[in-house]
Amino acid sequence: MESNESLKNKGDNKTLRLLMPQWQGGNNSAYYLGAQLLNWLAPSSDDAFEEVPIDLSAEGLTVEKGIFARSTLLKQVHAAKAILHKHNPDRVVVFGGDCGVELAPFAYLHNRYDGDAAILWIDAHPDVNSPEHFEHHHAHVLANLLGVGDEDFVAEVPKLVDPKNVLYVGLNDGTASEKEVMDRFNLSVVKPEEIVKDSSSVLDWLDNRNVSKVIVHFDLDVLDLREFRSLLIANPDTYSIMVEKTPKGSSIETIIRVLQDVGKAYDIVGLGITEHFPWEAVALANMLTRLPLIGDINKTDKPSYNWIF
Amino acid sequence: MESNESLKNKGDNKTLRLLMPQWQGGNNSAYYLGAQLLNWLAPSSDDAFEEVPIDLSAEGLTVEKGIFARSTLLKQVHAAKAILHKHNPDRVVVFGGDCGVELAPFAYLHNRYDGDAAILWIDAHPDVNSPEHFEHHHAHVLANLLGVGDEDFVAEVPKLVDPKNVLYVGLNDGTASEKEVMDRFNLSVVKPEEIVKDSSSVLDWLDNRNVSKVIVHFDLDVLDLREFRSLLIANPDTYSIMVEKTPKGSSIETIIRVLQDVGKAYDIVGLGITEHFPWEAVALANMLTRLPLIGDINKTDKPSYNWIF
Repeated sequence: MESNESLKNKGDNKTLRLLMPQWQGGNNSAYYLGAQLLNWLAPSSDDAFEEVPIDLSAEGLTVEKGIFARSTLLKQVHAAKAILHKHNPDRVVVFGGDCGVELAPFAYLHNRYDGDAAILWIDAHPDVNSPEHFEHHHAHVLANLLGVGDEDFVAEVPKLVDPKNVLYVGLNDGTASEKEVMDRFNLSVVKPEEIVKDSSSVLDWLDNRNVSKVIVHFDLDVLDLREFRSLLIANPDTYSIMVEKTPKGSSIETIIRVLQDVGKAYDIVGLGITEHFPWEAVALANMLTRLPLIGDINKTDKPSYNWIF
Repeated sequence: MESNESLKNKGDNKTLRLLMPQWQGGNNSAYYLGAQLLNWLAPSSDDAFEEVPIDLSAEGLTVEKGIFARSTLLKQVHAAKAILHKHNPDRVVVFGGDCGVELAPFAYLHNRYDGDAAILWIDAHPDVNSPEHFEHHHAHVLANLLGVGDEDFVAEVPKLVDPKNVLYVGLNDGTASEKEVMDRFNLSVVKPEEIVKDSSSVLDWLDNRNVSKVIVHFDLDVLDLREFRSLLIANPDTYSIMVEKTPKGSSIETIIRVLQDVGKAYDIVGLGITEHFPWEAVALANMLTRLPLIGDINKTDKPSYNWIF
């Protein structure tokens, strides 16, 4: 099997880097800044780059058919799909944004390789919720890929994912309604403690799939909030409480090692990074808009951790 | 007295925005990324913009005459001075970088207004240390402006600052050697608790100066680490300990209000923001350099919170 490195060395350039600063799927504008910042922090590359147009107005957004900002999210999925079809890449890097940003690129890649791909869902949460139970679409996206949930989102998946080819990595949480879906599909789970020593639990599982490609979802919330605080649950206002009650997540080093080990053994064709929630960057950006010589000293908005577009 | 806003409305455009990502003054490359990120987060402006060239190599840096990277820091002070003299601005915004970034612009402004300026030093620390006691220059900079410390740094201050025109705001800490300097110059202090309710302690002090301009140093470490964690002392590895032992700092809202109140009553001609230490951004950037499709999966460096240039 050819490694990414050797492909890179051959001058393979059919990777698309897709910035999708979608925030409506979690109804928090901080995801917008989080995606932009993630992209800004990434090493530069010669890959094709596109930014999916994202609505910035929160006005009039409501819950439609059990999903907050449903029509806006659908419009944005369609825009992402159009970009993917324009480039027709072999590989896709996604910088989110809420987890819902994975829908279009994962559906595209899975279809492009005709199902010959396993999905690693590296996330503290299972993301198989549905409109009946939870209104934020970022928790629905893996369900959609499996054919579950709102029919218009499911319709964006031309080839449904085989649940046998999905592995959760680092899962730490989940609601009753999500556990029901996980049980129904008999989804496999590698817990945080199983990847601390080495990556064999993930590699062994991959060895038992009959696929040649791997698509990776990496929700930053799989990381431990004591080491990495740019996460929704690491709100400074409630941080000390969350540190007490949140189970230990994976270390940055552990996740890097798992991804490197997988990348050395398999052909990773997709990597999406999501849910970057930079509390301090949001606070700083909002503060700067109100300071002398930089912003408007008459601006009286109380600061919030909502990013002001 | 004319407010900044009214000056802005008249189309005054002699403000220079100076990005100075100096990191050697605290010997931590995270300050480099912190400065770049601060600039990236700032609202765009029509002001002139310049970035002071900063050495990126850590190789060969040593303590010279009691100051870490002394010759490099002096070279960078000279570069900043040259930029200031090229533009000859009426007002300067500084995005640092370690606190030492204030030396050239504060010396320039204080000289430009012929001493007709008060300095608000909004900082948890007094920054009046000297080479005999402490090797990191970021803790020397206010001493230099007062004529104390290494002679080559002091030589960059054409008109020494009158200690009567310096006010500490939010001061929370200080070493014995710094307290000796503070006592010698009888420097005024407004403590964090004195600005919680309103800004009168600062405004009253300013009313008793005989100056028409105000220059503001804002070290982000004046903020409470429980609210704002992109600070040196908020290292995730030791955060829970530091939260226990660090006295309460000022809230973001308090500092904004003080700066707005001062800006409405006085002509602020300089504002420097320093010591932005974005732990999570550093960790994320370093991680991205090692991930499949984005970075190099053979890169084995352990992650650190040192920014990799």
